[in-house]
Amino acid sequence: MRPVCVIGLGLIGGSVLRAAARAGRTVFGAADDTVDDPRVEPTVAAALARAAAEDALVVLAVPLPAVDEVLRLVAEHAPNCLLTDVVSVKEPVAAAVAKRLPDARYAGGHPMAGKSMSGWAAGEETLFDGAAWVVTTDEDTDPAAWRAAADLALDCGAHVVPTTGSEHDAAVARISHLSHLLAAVLASTGADGGSLALSLAAGSFTDGTRVMGSRPELVLAMCEGNRGPLLAAVDEALGRLGAARGALASTGGLAATIRAGHEGRQALEDLRAADHEDVPIDLTDPEAWEMLRDLGTAGGRVMRLDGDVAIGQLPA
Amino acid sequence: MRPVCVIGLGLIGGSVLRAAARAGRTVFGAADDTVDDPRVEPTVAAALARAAAEDALVVLAVPLPAVDEVLRLVAEHAPNCLLTDVVSVKEPVAAAVAKRLPDARYAGGHPMAGKSMSGWAAGEETLFDGAAWVVTTDEDTDPAAWRAAADLALDCGAHVVPTTGSEHDAAVARISHLSHLLAAVLASTGADGGSLALSLAAGSFTDGTRVMGSRPELVLAMCEGNRGPLLAAVDEALGRLGAARGALASTGGLAATIRAGHEGRQALEDLRAADHEDVPIDLTDPEAWEMLRDLGTAGGRVMRLDGDVAIGQLPA
Repeated sequence: MRPVCVIGLGLIGGSVLRAAARAGRTVFGAADDTVDDPRVEPTVAAALARAAAEDALVVLAVPLPAVDEVLRLVAEHAPNCLLTDVVSVKEPVAAAVAKRLPDARYAGGHPMAGKSMSGWAAGEETLFDGAAWVVTTDEDTDPAAWRAAADLALDCGAHVVPTTGSEHDAAVARISHLSHLLAAVLASTGADGGSLALSLAAGSFTDGTRVMGSRPELVLAMCEGNRGPLLAAVDEALGRLGAARGALASTGGLAATIRAGHEGRQALEDLRAADHEDVPIDLTDPEAWEMLRDLGTAGGRVMRLDGDVAIGQLPA
Repeated sequence: MRPVCVIGLGLIGGSVLRAAARAGRTVFGAADDTVDDPRVEPTVAAALARAAAEDALVVLAVPLPAVDEVLRLVAEHAPNCLLTDVVSVKEPVAAAVAKRLPDARYAGGHPMAGKSMSGWAAGEETLFDGAAWVVTTDEDTDPAAWRAAADLALDCGAHVVPTTGSEHDAAVARISHLSHLLAAVLASTGADGGSLALSLAAGSFTDGTRVMGSRPELVLAMCEGNRGPLLAAVDEALGRLGAARGALASTGGLAATIRAGHEGRQALEDLRAADHEDVPIDLTDPEAWEMLRDLGTAGGRVMRLDGDVAIGQLPA
């Protein structure tokens, strides 16, 4: 099994390190000096030099604003290693990789898991169990890097969702970055009601604002890094909220808004409760990339790799 | 201990019945014919006639659109009973009471607890343990009704938050009804991203849309019944989301939005973690009503009644 070198050991990177170790992989990495662990090399350069020597998979696990500087070091110390990342947006990372390492064998990654606590100490080897983990599947994605990134995701207990970087960024704008923005709006508007309002806050407000407990810098880096797709999602949300406002002011009726919301939530629960059928995809097939993307579009996931065959599960 | 007659035995009414029974109170009520329980009288009229005979506290626990019809029956069968309610808005209920029963001894109530499941079967005797339970404390609130409503809330394991109907309605528009509307907008916008987006949904989307699992009719009755205050809260939210949109489109920066959201969430967590000081309020004091309202405004709660003294807790 290929060793794993994780650059950046916050909540996500620290959990990748632990989860890969649980799977029996050799793991090491680099972090700032707050992390005291024997698997941490003294510098990023040292970790990357070791990665080059051991032909490790290099995993970028730093916030987006730090990616470019780390890529510069990868180009210097480990330019031939297979490369992936666990950053929350995919097109900006791919663009940075194309600029710094035009010959990189790279496939982007994004595990859809997290919690409000951040940092190395909050990491857990079980964080990704059963979670979706996007591995980008663009026309020019390197097959070896894709396999290595998918292997890592599966070893960490996650399921692989194959899709393009562009489709990924549009989807997470809707279901993650917009969630954070609406949580911010709700938390601010609620707190403006003073202590009485906060004293009355129950489940709907507590749940709806939970992600605002995260460190603002991390939320900012994530949302600001996905500017274009997030703008589109915010405009859709503004349109829906404006329509609800108009209906409430004119007829007093919110049925269209609430029913659409109920159907949306029901679609989520239906997808999660759906039966699945197995879909084997031969990775040596010229159509494999397209079949993988179709699986992801349909809400399916790759559950394991069996030689050259990806075993997908498609919701029925 | 005064018997308790609960009209309407859905999630909230059914939980009030069970929680009051746990406290040793005699309880009975009325519901539609889906509830099979020996404490259910055959009709609303029969339950109210028994309430009149036993001088019970009558608790209205039906959705707002059904309140007026039940009040008509109260006027006919139990006009002299102390009266409260557990409906999610307070000014519309108070207005309906003033119209149907101008001489009623009434204090409004609203326990801030719930869950996505609805109906009698979902009720729990522990649902209100530690929850806030508003008892309206307006200038014209009947002291005996206030005491009876507060006694019921405390017997059900809740803490009493004293405030006016108007302050209540403005506060819950922010922290409950707006939460539901934003959850609807988020669920719809997420589901519009198709199966891929829903397949990638993790904690922020799951938490942020949870309340949309509730029955749409109940959410509608709640939100539409608080039209004026909800409009004000929606306008504030639209302003904040529009400002975020503008900042994202122009400078790409969301710091003001995310930091305000983080501070709002922090204010919630600080209030919940705060130490408290005891504040005894003599209910026979001419200023008692004002002192109770000040306690509620400051995020405080009445924890018990000791003879004529309400023992309040004020966050330090």
